[in-house]
Amino acid sequence: MQRIDEIIQPRWLIPVDEEHSILESHAVALDGGKIIALGPAEEIRSRYEADTLSRRDHHALIPGLVNAHTHAAMTLFRGFADDLPLMQWLREHIWPAEQRWVGPGFVECGTNLAIAEMIRGGTTCFNDMYFFPDTVAECAEEAGIRACVGMIVIDFPTAWARDATEYLDKGVAFHRHIRDSSLVTAAFAPHAPYTVSDAPLRNIAALSEELDCPVHIHLHETAHEVEESVSKHGIRPIERLDRLGLLGPRLLAVHMTQLLPEEIRTIAERGVHVVHCAESNLKLASGFCPVAELHKADARVCLGTDGASSNNDLDMLGELRTASLLAKGVGGDPTALNAYQSLQAATVNGARGLGLGAVTGSIQAGKSADVVAIDLSHCSTEPVYNPVSQIVYSATRDQVSDVWIAGRQVLHNREFTSLDYASVRDAAIQWRNKISA
Amino acid sequence: MQRIDEIIQPRWLIPVDEEHSILESHAVALDGGKIIALGPAEEIRSRYEADTLSRRDHHALIPGLVNAHTHAAMTLFRGFADDLPLMQWLREHIWPAEQRWVGPGFVECGTNLAIAEMIRGGTTCFNDMYFFPDTVAECAEEAGIRACVGMIVIDFPTAWARDATEYLDKGVAFHRHIRDSSLVTAAFAPHAPYTVSDAPLRNIAALSEELDCPVHIHLHETAHEVEESVSKHGIRPIERLDRLGLLGPRLLAVHMTQLLPEEIRTIAERGVHVVHCAESNLKLASGFCPVAELHKADARVCLGTDGASSNNDLDMLGELRTASLLAKGVGGDPTALNAYQSLQAATVNGARGLGLGAVTGSIQAGKSADVVAIDLSHCSTEPVYNPVSQIVYSATRDQVSDVWIAGRQVLHNREFTSLDYASVRDAAIQWRNKISA
Repeated sequence: MQRIDEIIQPRWLIPVDEEHSILESHAVALDGGKIIALGPAEEIRSRYEADTLSRRDHHALIPGLVNAHTHAAMTLFRGFADDLPLMQWLREHIWPAEQRWVGPGFVECGTNLAIAEMIRGGTTCFNDMYFFPDTVAECAEEAGIRACVGMIVIDFPTAWARDATEYLDKGVAFHRHIRDSSLVTAAFAPHAPYTVSDAPLRNIAALSEELDCPVHIHLHETAHEVEESVSKHGIRPIERLDRLGLLGPRLLAVHMTQLLPEEIRTIAERGVHVVHCAESNLKLASGFCPVAELHKADARVCLGTDGASSNNDLDMLGELRTASLLAKGVGGDPTALNAYQSLQAATVNGARGLGLGAVTGSIQAGKSADVVAIDLSHCSTEPVYNPVSQIVYSATRDQVSDVWIAGRQVLHNREFTSLDYASVRDAAIQWRNKISA
Repeated sequence: MQRIDEIIQPRWLIPVDEEHSILESHAVALDGGKIIALGPAEEIRSRYEADTLSRRDHHALIPGLVNAHTHAAMTLFRGFADDLPLMQWLREHIWPAEQRWVGPGFVECGTNLAIAEMIRGGTTCFNDMYFFPDTVAECAEEAGIRACVGMIVIDFPTAWARDATEYLDKGVAFHRHIRDSSLVTAAFAPHAPYTVSDAPLRNIAALSEELDCPVHIHLHETAHEVEESVSKHGIRPIERLDRLGLLGPRLLAVHMTQLLPEEIRTIAERGVHVVHCAESNLKLASGFCPVAELHKADARVCLGTDGASSNNDLDMLGELRTASLLAKGVGGDPTALNAYQSLQAATVNGARGLGLGAVTGSIQAGKSADVVAIDLSHCSTEPVYNPVSQIVYSATRDQVSDVWIAGRQVLHNREFTSLDYASVRDAAIQWRNKISA
């Protein structure tokens, strides 16, 4: 018998594969941070001798959730200014507060709180766009969560950099710095077409190819953005990004609430990854991303929460549920984005979008052991006819009981093992006191 | 000093009043099942000597949530058939399963599971429409939850009654039977305009006035329903109910996704209570209830989950969040149904709709002690700038820690005190095994 680190034997094993499998009496073998096998429990247990056997008799085991769009540190602005028109919210509240408070200390505290929240809710990988990426990367490494950290670029000065050139230089230095990390990768993160001009976007197109890095951008978030682009550039933002060489499978286009039928076709043909942020789009009344149509066109759709100041949480189970419900409502079709498709969007599609399709996003031999157990014996998820239905339409984040990332169990029976939540919380409260003073 | 049963001293007290108050360092005095006073904590504690002092230092105390539309027993069909077109779902799955299985035993088990779920999530009162109302009432009394139980009427025979006359007779007998209950009230529950003909609807209009009972009906749920009425009756269902004498403040009109501007005005003028079921409408792709417009017209809007087979849970915190987000998205206005308004819809508005405005729905001296503590120290709700924002946009049901109904604490530190969840769960699993066999 081969000696290995751990066997996890759940009630239901949901690998998230093309066949939409739901397996019972199956187990997963983990060793050296990787999934080395899955199969019938008896077979796995007779083949391997594990240091730890984790039985989860009322639980579904799924791949770790991938949150494909966050501004993690903004947890410190959660509920700081709600129910306001978008421009008033940004100009009178968020931007002045960011200008006043954002620095490495703020980013460290806010990111730690975000990571706690994400681990607690079953997210094992997030794609971040904020300032001080080196700080974000350190927080992720320390807590043991996978992160794709944005090399942000924006035309105006912030505490992080003065101008587009400095943003890019610092970004590329960051990319070099984290190259050997097993948990952290980097993506170019030009903020949006309306805040980044042509020259840096062109540079990013070239660099992203050279370094084989994703490009993470807010795109077609509101009708206003599209109109402004037409009046300033004579073309819609998607067309502008196309001319700048950015419209391909490395692009993570976030929001996409304003799409013409021909744009849907182009997006699908070019393999662009649409990051749908259902709750943020609703809360800010940005418009509806046409998920049902994108699906029909075979476009790639993954999911993100956006930052906690426009959602107001980083809860991917909540997000995938809202996404599935909203796709049906907006598409006028109760079969749109069914439960399994929604789980695919929140896992394997996100991983592919971040260029991590070979690393994470499904329970498959050879991939990293990024897996999550969800307790379905809660009164809101009994009785279970179909565990995927229960996960998508009935479960909430607090039913996540255990989380493994690269084989390390970072949540054990709802308790953090890699971070000290009490001190994260204390620090967040201190920031709140300063900010609201 | 006056001796009383209990003082609850939370971190934040949110009475849900017209002033949108959020009180700190306040406490609530309970005695004989009622709220007898609220005020500054020091004052309350110097005025009363309580048998129990419940301090909740990280918690918001809110009125118990009112779920204004349920089919409680349908928890046993949770996730039984999802992602299907409406008519296929009903005709091939739900209706045959109901015909085969629904009886007093099914209703008892399903209702108990629903009650567990509702208490666990902070719901203290529900408005039910199903068969075997006497069984539902017994379950509610036993678990100590407030219920408005539907006297269902439908043109076709079921296990509960043969025809409209028998439904009505049994309903009126039920009404007589529960007249002296302090927890259970009754509402007429004609299923829908397309399943109940004019004669019984006219009877219900007369009886509801005579007995001063609400009338609970599905109305304008889908475009199809409206079209069918126009072709069959020559008028839309709202107009038909108006002619039958039902369009007034006793009417709880559930769904209302298809509304013309003049219908919105009529609804508002007549004081009809719209029961918005945001998640059910999304999941079944029924259409969008125009909540922002209804609000502008000063119409009365409360919230319901619908049954667990079309939602798929009875989670009012989830529902009020979806309702608030969706109102903004559909209304194209990020200020629509703000956090406090959404909490009002889920509490005081629901109570008024059920004719229980003097009894429950807000924390006010003289009302029943139906209150709920929500722990905001969770990593998804820190830091707290505004507890109402956190409750509406960030909290989930598992942050509900304590629930009191008529002064009896039915949930204590997340544990049930009035029901045995393990046996409820076992029974539900046995039903699942039978149903899926």
